[in-house]
Amino acid sequence: VAGLLGARPEEIIFTSGGTESNNLAIQGLIWELQETYFFPGPRFSLSASRRTSARPFEKVSFLPHFITTNIEHPSVLETCRMLEKRGLVELTIVPVEANGIVDPEKIKKAIKQNTVLISIIYANNEIGTIQPIREIAKEIRRYQKYGGKTFVNTKVLPPYLPFSPLFHTDAAQAANYLDLKVEKLGVNLLSLSGGKIAGSGRIGVLYRKKGTPLINVFGGGSQEFGLRPGTENLSEILKFSRALKLAQRNREKETKRLLKLRNYFIDQLLHSKILKNYRIVLNGDLEKRLPNNVNISIPKIPSDLLVLELSARGVYVSEKSACQSREGESSYVIQALNKQGRSLPKENISSLRFSFGPDTTKANLNYTLQSLSKILQKLEKWYN
Amino acid sequence: VAGLLGARPEEIIFTSGGTESNNLAIQGLIWELQETYFFPGPRFSLSASRRTSARPFEKVSFLPHFITTNIEHPSVLETCRMLEKRGLVELTIVPVEANGIVDPEKIKKAIKQNTVLISIIYANNEIGTIQPIREIAKEIRRYQKYGGKTFVNTKVLPPYLPFSPLFHTDAAQAANYLDLKVEKLGVNLLSLSGGKIAGSGRIGVLYRKKGTPLINVFGGGSQEFGLRPGTENLSEILKFSRALKLAQRNREKETKRLLKLRNYFIDQLLHSKILKNYRIVLNGDLEKRLPNNVNISIPKIPSDLLVLELSARGVYVSEKSACQSREGESSYVIQALNKQGRSLPKENISSLRFSFGPDTTKANLNYTLQSLSKILQKLEKWYN
Repeated sequence: VAGLLGARPEEIIFTSGGTESNNLAIQGLIWELQETYFFPGPRFSLSASRRTSARPFEKVSFLPHFITTNIEHPSVLETCRMLEKRGLVELTIVPVEANGIVDPEKIKKAIKQNTVLISIIYANNEIGTIQPIREIAKEIRRYQKYGGKTFVNTKVLPPYLPFSPLFHTDAAQAANYLDLKVEKLGVNLLSLSGGKIAGSGRIGVLYRKKGTPLINVFGGGSQEFGLRPGTENLSEILKFSRALKLAQRNREKETKRLLKLRNYFIDQLLHSKILKNYRIVLNGDLEKRLPNNVNISIPKIPSDLLVLELSARGVYVSEKSACQSREGESSYVIQALNKQGRSLPKENISSLRFSFGPDTTKANLNYTLQSLSKILQKLEKWYN
Repeated sequence: VAGLLGARPEEIIFTSGGTESNNLAIQGLIWELQETYFFPGPRFSLSASRRTSARPFEKVSFLPHFITTNIEHPSVLETCRMLEKRGLVELTIVPVEANGIVDPEKIKKAIKQNTVLISIIYANNEIGTIQPIREIAKEIRRYQKYGGKTFVNTKVLPPYLPFSPLFHTDAAQAANYLDLKVEKLGVNLLSLSGGKIAGSGRIGVLYRKKGTPLINVFGGGSQEFGLRPGTENLSEILKFSRALKLAQRNREKETKRLLKLRNYFIDQLLHSKILKNYRIVLNGDLEKRLPNNVNISIPKIPSDLLVLELSARGVYVSEKSACQSREGESSYVIQALNKQGRSLPKENISSLRFSFGPDTTKANLNYTLQSLSKILQKLEKWYN
């Protein structure tokens, strides 16, 4: 696994899944900072004793600041919000643009004196948009270049911590199609999920660049360098490493194949004779998205009904993420796009996600297009 | 799983393993208390708004108090210590007696006005001693009977919280041989580990009695009633439930069979002609221990050497728990017994753990006894 990421073996921590990897990256940082750096006064003191029995919250002189986006997976977004609610961090949520991609400039502008972590999803789980991870890393490195000094309101302020803001990316959805080389990406922390790779099981990985502050979230044994107590799930670890190897080996070939299918499918959804009257809207960027993802909104027609109707015809699509925490609500990712002044009417925030896999063929897509057309023909009488 | 525990389905939370179950029980309580009950002043106010954006640590008026023992699994003991170090709890560690069993009277005496959680291992993972869970539960219930009032120094003090101290037990080692009916045990929280049940895999369960304060440790989706975000490991859940069913169905018959073997093995270790000269000491109670566990100390002979020598003869035993967090040190469980004035010399804290399984026969034990005798004969020249 380390080899596939261009990392060292001691930088790879196995967890129980993507949710745990993201939580470990985010929560593990907070407590490490608490224990190591936070002392009275605005400056840290590295010479002060590392472990202290004093209550840490009496030592806190400033709140660590996190930056993330409004289209993160719930295991990042909800974890950040949870820590904010508990008074452990200050949180800035940078909204993405109308195409579902975050502007690196906006991330840069959000960096403050107390910024310790920036967490941006590599490829979104609902709309598949690919975030400019390298560009954002470059902005953070620029900050590093000036000796960790930050420029807020054109004033040079001393940083609180002896390192630049750390950069974490949730790469769960990226493993099958994108480059995972951590040095190229420029990240300190990277999460992977076995559940998103064919042939793997429920297991996760957190890459942690050597020296990145992190402490175990669970108390217990000293497995995984003490960062993840509990007996290692060896059989799943082996399955995961083989599955990731296969996925990364095939990713360029498979991307090429799927891109053709994806672009054909999007084109047909938006412009084909049988569907163009329904004014289908593509959610997320037309190009900068995973090759296996198409996400659309169809004005006025409820998407839960479409999921059922398509399912009855053997086409399985989803409405939003299975990990969305507030059930009954529509996707917050689609809502995030609509906030940026898209032409879509406000009340129309329902969506359909089509995911392709290694077995998907053009015939499958044509059948799906035909089915969708028939369903819409049937439903439009009631909803128009 | 609920049926086997005499619980309701909504009281069963699947986790990634025993370590996570214990952490969820302990850490999940702390944050639920923080968010729900802690307000300025010594008393809680149930009418105050449940969620508040204020920093929780400015609201804390007292520290929650935990009680545990000095022979808990590291995922309980280290988690409690971690929370204590972070200033989130006050911790009392009640030492066990020389036979490795905790005195319920000492637990009762440790209960204070701010006690919120008592966590006692059902059966110890190294020495197999079975703790008096029902008796301890009775002491806690007595406290409940007096309307949650506690008697410290003969003065009646008002409790801080509207419930009695919660009772958690780590039943990971108990699943194969002991009664798991939660009502009989009288616990609010109970942890199980698939790793300790034949036929199951790396998965865990936390039983949480309805109404027991608990909040998710991980941020994320709403799986497992919102208490354990992340896609459920369905195949492992099915394997676990079948394995637990089988284990609980066979436990009385298997206990009977193993008790005979265990008592024979102990008798031979302590009294047989070929071994009695080595003054072997049994660690843990002679009777109140798991039927598959024998743990001994052999004066003067280093146990790591014995592990290697036995292994070379095809007998696989362990020295201490794989989950012990401080490597290189001897078992803290054996140290705990020696603190209680056993006759064993202080420097002799090495130990050997023999575990039996469904395939263990008397012939296996005789072979082990013979092997041990030969090894000791060889080694004693150098160590006496």
